[in-house]
Amino acid sequence: MATTEVPDIVIGRLPIYLRALSLLHQEGYEFTSSQELGQRLGIGSAQIRKDLSFFGEFGKQGTGYEIKYLQDQISKILHVDRDWPVVLVGLGDLGQAIANYAGFASKRFHIEAIFDSDLVKVGQSVKGTIVQDIKNLSDVISNQKIQIAIIATPAVVAQEVADKLVECGIRAILNYAPITLTVPEDVHVQYIDPVMHLQRMTYYLI
Amino acid sequence: MATTEVPDIVIGRLPIYLRALSLLHQEGYEFTSSQELGQRLGIGSAQIRKDLSFFGEFGKQGTGYEIKYLQDQISKILHVDRDWPVVLVGLGDLGQAIANYAGFASKRFHIEAIFDSDLVKVGQSVKGTIVQDIKNLSDVISNQKIQIAIIATPAVVAQEVADKLVECGIRAILNYAPITLTVPEDVHVQYIDPVMHLQRMTYYLI
Repeated sequence: MATTEVPDIVIGRLPIYLRALSLLHQEGYEFTSSQELGQRLGIGSAQIRKDLSFFGEFGKQGTGYEIKYLQDQISKILHVDRDWPVVLVGLGDLGQAIANYAGFASKRFHIEAIFDSDLVKVGQSVKGTIVQDIKNLSDVISNQKIQIAIIATPAVVAQEVADKLVECGIRAILNYAPITLTVPEDVHVQYIDPVMHLQRMTYYLI
Repeated sequence: MATTEVPDIVIGRLPIYLRALSLLHQEGYEFTSSQELGQRLGIGSAQIRKDLSFFGEFGKQGTGYEIKYLQDQISKILHVDRDWPVVLVGLGDLGQAIANYAGFASKRFHIEAIFDSDLVKVGQSVKGTIVQDIKNLSDVISNQKIQIAIIATPAVVAQEVADKLVECGIRAILNYAPITLTVPEDVHVQYIDPVMHLQRMTYYLI
């Protein structure tokens, strides 16, 4: 697959398609179309067909897409047809919610280790995972060959944590701390910042 | 201001600029440039200038942008130069984290009311806000003229909750439940779905 040719914005839409397909599957449907998907998602059907065409021919004239098949194919493309171990750094309120969130494991992202610098938290068990001293970060990540980290620390230490994670070999960071991280080009960062989503909507409110 | 002319994708970048400016301001800088902003954000400087040009002339040849001034202007454009009351529906682990998250109030989004259908939770106090029966939703929203809601319920009830919120006059929804909501065209929805962010990054991992 020619990875470099696919625009990142297209990659960003694949999880959206996957979620819609998963919902259609749950609702008992077997087939769908780019029109139906588009209508559900507020995305043009031509856009959906174009996005998918980067990866092959998944639909048939007349019958459209077989939902289960398209789900499997997109899962393979996104490499989410396998289990991914994840480390979580920071166990405040938000870290707690993340550690307890069932939605990660159901999509095969498993929080294998939790780290905090607060020694009061170290040794506690969250859903069967013992919170470890952040000093063990390097050993755990290299021993378990973990590539993905979630940062849920305060903003002031997030960059320092990110630097450490990258040094240990982490290649993808989901950052909940409200700052923009500086990382090497081959490390991927995605941001969860609810305030920015709210700010985007208030533009339209009076 | 000609609201309808500005592409939504441009609006979506304004909060990103605002956050970067806020950080530069905190770091003690007084002036910045589209080059510096671009470098920090991984966005082209021409893109930044073009985005801002939708709203006016904010920079000067030679000196660039005065940070505080540009912050104020973008805040006004996004209507975040004022306080916004918000209702939170759903007080599970995630709802707890949201209710306790200081980042909302610091950006002038105030959780004025919390609702849950679980009568065990109703009456509890979270950061001084009493959890109310979801039956009171309509009264609270109309009395306090609230336009923004955060949904942190399980996925199975999220659409039903959204319908109720819209009926009560809510015009912007931040949805943490992992489903795509169907709402009228004039209601804005933003999604927080960490799994989709992870899935977007695993594409690049092997």
